[in-house]
This record gives sequence, structure tokens and C-alpha cells, in this order.
Amino acid sequence: MMGTRDRLLTATNELFRRHGYNGTSLKQVTAAAAAPTGSLYHFFPGGKDELTLAVITTSGETYRQLFELIADAAADPANAVTDFFEAAATVLEETDYIDPCPIGTIAREVASTNESLRQGTDRVFTSWIDAATSRFEGQGIPRDTAQQLATTLVAALEGGFVLARAKRDAEPLRTVGRSMRDLVDQAMETVTAK
Amino acid sequence: MMGTRDRLLTATNELFRRHGYNGTSLKQVTAAAAAPTGSLYHFFPGGKDELTLAVITTSGETYRQLFELIADAAADPANAVTDFFEAAATVLEETDYIDPCPIGTIAREVASTNESLRQGTDRVFTSWIDAATSRFEGQGIPRDTAQQLATTLVAALEGGFVLARAKRDAEPLRTVGRSMRDLVDQAMETVTAK
Repeated sequence: MMGTRDRLLTATNELFRRHGYNGTSLKQVTAAAAAPTGSLYHFFPGGKDELTLAVITTSGETYRQLFELIADAAADPANAVTDFFEAAATVLEETDYIDPCPIGTIAREVASTNESLRQGTDRVFTSWIDAATSRFEGQGIPRDTAQQLATTLVAALEGGFVLARAKRDAEPLRTVGRSMRDLVDQAMETVTAK
Repeated sequence: MMGTRDRLLTATNELFRRHGYNGTSLKQVTAAAAAPTGSLYHFFPGGKDELTLAVITTSGETYRQLFELIADAAADPANAVTDFFEAAATVLEETDYIDPCPIGTIAREVASTNESLRQGTDRVFTSWIDAATSRFEGQGIPRDTAQQLATTLVAALEGGFVLARAKRDAEPLRTVGRSMRDLVDQAMETVTAK
């Protein structure tokens, strides 16, 4: 059975995916986690900020691992990108379009108002961009191009979530995935041509 | 002097850019607009939802016009894209990284919880994608490619805002802009080659 700390993290993550950071109260969290209010401050003495930072960090790490898994399984970088956007589109469809990435929503909600959470979201995005950059570099793509590609992939994924959720249709995410594949193909052609 | 209705819209837009939808209260709006609470319900009988929908619609239209202006002034579609992302990056830097596009944040906050606002954000994104699609088609890019490009541009812009605000650095937005230019160049090469 899941411990109280994990139940609190999971419940917060789920609430963020539907209501965002400002739309989620600690009362909702403890109710959803079936945990007494005291336990929240026991595990997260800093209250909502500390809990949110933990959710950002743990789910950011989970997504990075998911990306690595998909990249490991794919035949080449272009297929990895297609598979990743397809997986994201399927998750959206199967979860009634709740946010697959609460981090992107929180990032925009807190960027101007909460410095420690802003930095937390930046660390996660940077870890994703670094992971994708390494992958592309490993395929022989020069560092600058690899970094540009990786940054664009993360931005396109986050923006794809915005469009797909607004439309309640995963198609924009697949469309964006096709453009990202085009970019990777373009970069790989330069490598192969060498 | 700005009328009360316009003052309410402007104040709400400014508050959304810093605090998002859930982080903004009507009390803050009337205080920032120097308007009595009664005036808010006079102009927006539906309260926060009606006011938010008006902000989404009016600022969505302003951004569409801005895009058209930049596109009109540019020598070609690739330069238009570069100019647009450069303009967005400059706005971010000059406004202390508050959200240039409250619509993207609201879209993610309300997608699972407020059907009429979700549809409002979808209409705005669709109007942007349609405007960019027409531009690209006007340059001889086939409709399917034009639509894919336009969708990717809007997603990349929204995702670029996420990364740049999280980092308090406009560089990710410029990086994404370079990738978008590569995509437009790629599409235009096919046109020129015909």
C-alpha cells in the first residue's frame, strides 16, 4: 500500500492536472489523499510550496525517464520523436484531456509570483532539454543544433498540450509531432551527408 | 480617458498576465481598474466568466492583428517568423517576464473545468492558426503543409513562453524561433523548386 507521503504527492499531481496550482487547495489535497491535515505539514513543513516543488521534481523525473525509455526503444531519433508525440496524444485521449504535464501549467502560473517554484520548473525543463540534447549529440548531431532541437521539442510538446486540451482533440499534438520529426530528419540528413 | 468597461478589461488582462485565471480575484480587478464592484456586474452580468471570455476574445484579436502587421512588414514568410519570435522575446524582456499571452495560461487552467472558457481559448488559437495558414497558402505552400506549419508555430510560441518565463531568459524563445524559421525555409524550398 502507498505510504501517506506518496498518497499526498499523487493526489496533488492529479489535482494539478485538472485545476492547476492556484485552483488546488490543501484541503482538496488531504481529502483526495485520505490523509489528515497534520500529515501534510509533517511530510511537507513548508506547506503548499514544498509539496508543489516535490510534485514538480518527482513528476519531472518520471517524464524524463519515460522519454529515455521511448528513445531507447525507437529505431532512430526521428522515430523516437514520432513515438513520443504519439504516446502523449494517446495519454490525452485516454485521460479525458486532463493535463499530461502539470509542470507546464504551474510554470506559467507561478513564473511572476513564486521564485522558488519558478526555479523548480526551470530545473525540470532544463533536465529534459539536456537529456534530449545528449541523445541527439549521441547520434552525431553537433551540440548547437542538438540543443536547438531539444529546446524546440520541449516547447512544442508544452504548446501542443495547450492546443490539444483547448480543442479536446489530440490532433494538434500529432501535427506538431510531424513538424518535429521533419526537424530531426533535417538535422540527421546533415549528419548522414558528412 | 478610458471608459470603465475598457479599464476593467485592461486590469483583468494585466492581472491574468501575472497571476493567471485562478490566481486573480474580482476584488483585485475592481481595485486595479479603480471601478466600483457594481460596475463589473453592470458590464459583465455573467461575472468572472463573462469578463474572462471578453479578455480572451479581445486580446486574441489584438495578437492576431499584431501577427498580420508583422507578416505584412516582412520581406518573406521566413523573415516574418523570425521577426515575430524576436518581437515576442523583446516584449518578455521589457515587461519583466510577465506572461505575454494570458490566453495560453488560462487555456491550461480551465481546459478541464470550464467548458465555455475552454471553447473561448480554442476559438482564439484556431483564429491564429487560420490566419497563419492563409498567409502560408498565399505563398504557394500547399494547404496541408501550411496548416501543419501554422499549428506548429502557435504551439512553439506558447511553449516558448513557458520555457522563457521559467528561465527568466528570452533565449529559449529565440531558439525556438530559429527552428520555426528552418521549418518555413524547408516548406518554401519545395515551393521554389516547383
